[in-house]
Amino acid sequence: MLENVEVQPKRLDDYQPIVGAEMIYELQQLANDLKGARVLNINATSFGGGVAEILTTLVPLMRDLGIQAEWQVIHGSDEFFNVTKASHNGLQGMDIPLTDDMKNIWLHYNQLNAEKLEGEYDFIIVHDPQPAGMLHFCNRKHGKHWIWRCHIDTSNANPAFWGFYSQYINSYEAAVFTMKQYVGPGVNFEHLAIIPPTIDPLSPKNAPIPLERAREGVAGFGIDPSRPLITQVSRFDPWKDPLGVIDAYRLVKKEIPNVQLALVGSMASDDPEGWYFLDKTSRHAGEDSDIFILHNFQGVGAYEVGCFQTTSDSVVQKSTREGFGLVVTEALWKGKPVVGGNVGGIPLQVINGETGYLVDSIEDCADKVLYLLQHPDESRKMGKASQDHVRHHFLSMHHLKNYLHLFRSLAIV
Amino acid sequence: MLENVEVQPKRLDDYQPIVGAEMIYELQQLANDLKGARVLNINATSFGGGVAEILTTLVPLMRDLGIQAEWQVIHGSDEFFNVTKASHNGLQGMDIPLTDDMKNIWLHYNQLNAEKLEGEYDFIIVHDPQPAGMLHFCNRKHGKHWIWRCHIDTSNANPAFWGFYSQYINSYEAAVFTMKQYVGPGVNFEHLAIIPPTIDPLSPKNAPIPLERAREGVAGFGIDPSRPLITQVSRFDPWKDPLGVIDAYRLVKKEIPNVQLALVGSMASDDPEGWYFLDKTSRHAGEDSDIFILHNFQGVGAYEVGCFQTTSDSVVQKSTREGFGLVVTEALWKGKPVVGGNVGGIPLQVINGETGYLVDSIEDCADKVLYLLQHPDESRKMGKASQDHVRHHFLSMHHLKNYLHLFRSLAIV
Repeated sequence: MLENVEVQPKRLDDYQPIVGAEMIYELQQLANDLKGARVLNINATSFGGGVAEILTTLVPLMRDLGIQAEWQVIHGSDEFFNVTKASHNGLQGMDIPLTDDMKNIWLHYNQLNAEKLEGEYDFIIVHDPQPAGMLHFCNRKHGKHWIWRCHIDTSNANPAFWGFYSQYINSYEAAVFTMKQYVGPGVNFEHLAIIPPTIDPLSPKNAPIPLERAREGVAGFGIDPSRPLITQVSRFDPWKDPLGVIDAYRLVKKEIPNVQLALVGSMASDDPEGWYFLDKTSRHAGEDSDIFILHNFQGVGAYEVGCFQTTSDSVVQKSTREGFGLVVTEALWKGKPVVGGNVGGIPLQVINGETGYLVDSIEDCADKVLYLLQHPDESRKMGKASQDHVRHHFLSMHHLKNYLHLFRSLAIV
Repeated sequence: MLENVEVQPKRLDDYQPIVGAEMIYELQQLANDLKGARVLNINATSFGGGVAEILTTLVPLMRDLGIQAEWQVIHGSDEFFNVTKASHNGLQGMDIPLTDDMKNIWLHYNQLNAEKLEGEYDFIIVHDPQPAGMLHFCNRKHGKHWIWRCHIDTSNANPAFWGFYSQYINSYEAAVFTMKQYVGPGVNFEHLAIIPPTIDPLSPKNAPIPLERAREGVAGFGIDPSRPLITQVSRFDPWKDPLGVIDAYRLVKKEIPNVQLALVGSMASDDPEGWYFLDKTSRHAGEDSDIFILHNFQGVGAYEVGCFQTTSDSVVQKSTREGFGLVVTEALWKGKPVVGGNVGGIPLQVINGETGYLVDSIEDCADKVLYLLQHPDESRKMGKASQDHVRHHFLSMHHLKNYLHLFRSLAIV
């Protein structure tokens, strides 16, 4: 058997004050015919990363609706995960080779995991490319309906990788992509659903923090909460353009001399390139003591990120390339309009002039940040619209609703 | 029983090509009357840190001389190690409080560990303050001769800590300090030995690396091995003065425009202050692409440090406060004169004008680095003297010899 992941129970009723009774009722109605349905989620890891975060919420909420939802993770060796890491990059367009050796390793572990699969399910949702070959080796056994859930952007996939993987992916009855634009070329599914990722408003990351406590939180890192603060929360990599954010901040500082900038990110001990780019960012910042460069090794965890999002006068996500950008969702949810790059999932979230501003250049970014800092009332109004936009589109309940619709269309309820 | 530490065997004969037959013979003669003697080393940790590194070499070498040497580590909880961490700082002079609670925790764990001690030994060497109270609770049982081996500088100890600890330390028959100047006030031992720490010339850290391979090693981090390189290997903390090293490099660069600087250090994931000071260093360096700031998370391990020490045209250790400075020993051993701060154990190693230069200011540091870079023949000659100085004073064999003398004086052989 594959390894089962235990999750804490969650109750939909607890979300009613946030999303309203109507939404909860709608979910219950949609789930009525699905009571007792057996749903298995299969992915590569039980913690770390967005997929694990989403399943930690969705699996218990499905159970609360009477669905027999499960979550299992595949087994793999270092060599397997090296191949899937390369495949992740290749499927997102990186120019790297896919060798026969790599293919054989991937197939071998997919076969092993397929042989370990037990039980009978109505729906098997296979997440991302790592276990995508299991259906092939299961020969459609174990699951009535097989769904491939893709969390990455395959639209510009390296053809070597897409050609190989799509052979296995195309046998699924249904596929789910995050955005329409992310669907790779030549796919041919009976059912294709577009379901954006979402945040859990009751998770520690997204639960509200009283302003006073959030101010204390950022003050602990040397920030003066009585002075204006611009924040970008992101990994330190070129696509998030922290150097561009520093340049934009410098333009803003000409007009508002006491403005501060916080660049807040998460570092991994096994990512030398990330450390290199962190150093590059620090060195671009120079000895300006109003710029704060902070990460998890300095004690910035989910709660502290929340403090930054809560106290910031302006939240920026100046990406030049982006997946969906859940960190934008988190900031909008905290009532902050976001000044974001016009890429990936950001334009779905940032409605220009309503929930923030879409920008294409350093100057544009600086202008919009300056405008928000100089118009606090309007910023607050937009912040309210930002929160509503997330409330109406990007909370776990929407995710759940989308899955229920998909299940119903497959089972022809 | 306390936890026993297993060590790989080592043979003194393997060191003969380095230290000469005479030294090996002298050690064997000194050990003749000590054959079968039971020696127990007790410390707080079996890996990480200088003490563990030293015991990894000394214990097997004692065994090779026919001494029944052992190494055991104490048990402790987080609260115990929090107290010993604070005590480490207090005994080195930090102005922090020592509460009754802290004293009780330390005494409690020393009593527990004393009760776990088994067997009969001729010599028990207790390393550093953590287990120093065990003798008190053993009431002199288990060991004929108890020795306290202090690896830290207690000369400016916070009186609250020194007053408390010295009650327990003073009951030892003998004490060993690293340097005469490190002995705290009012100690009163029958036997007081001064034994500097040493390096193992056959450890991976100190084994010679062919120049070509070392050049490839540093080139991997973006350094141009055909251009001059200044290196400081040290933690990123104010006492190692990396900012001063950058300023000195800038002065040198005025004369030698193609000079490069590498600041190489080791970071710990649980040391927020270290990460803060690393950021401060990067930001002081600014966007000068001839300055390289590197650490273990970027793939710099013991071997890579060796590559830097081997290829550098000038090695600096511009500390304003230092313990013994084993990193200076390592560089001297690799045939490099060191430009070092005139503090701690550095003047024992850096003989001004012979094995390097002692400096007190940024300008002085820059002058001496410049001199060495502009006089490569002299630098090579000094490098030869540097290696000889370590060969004659700071290799594991000297450590061993010093211990054998101490054992003999205690046992009146």
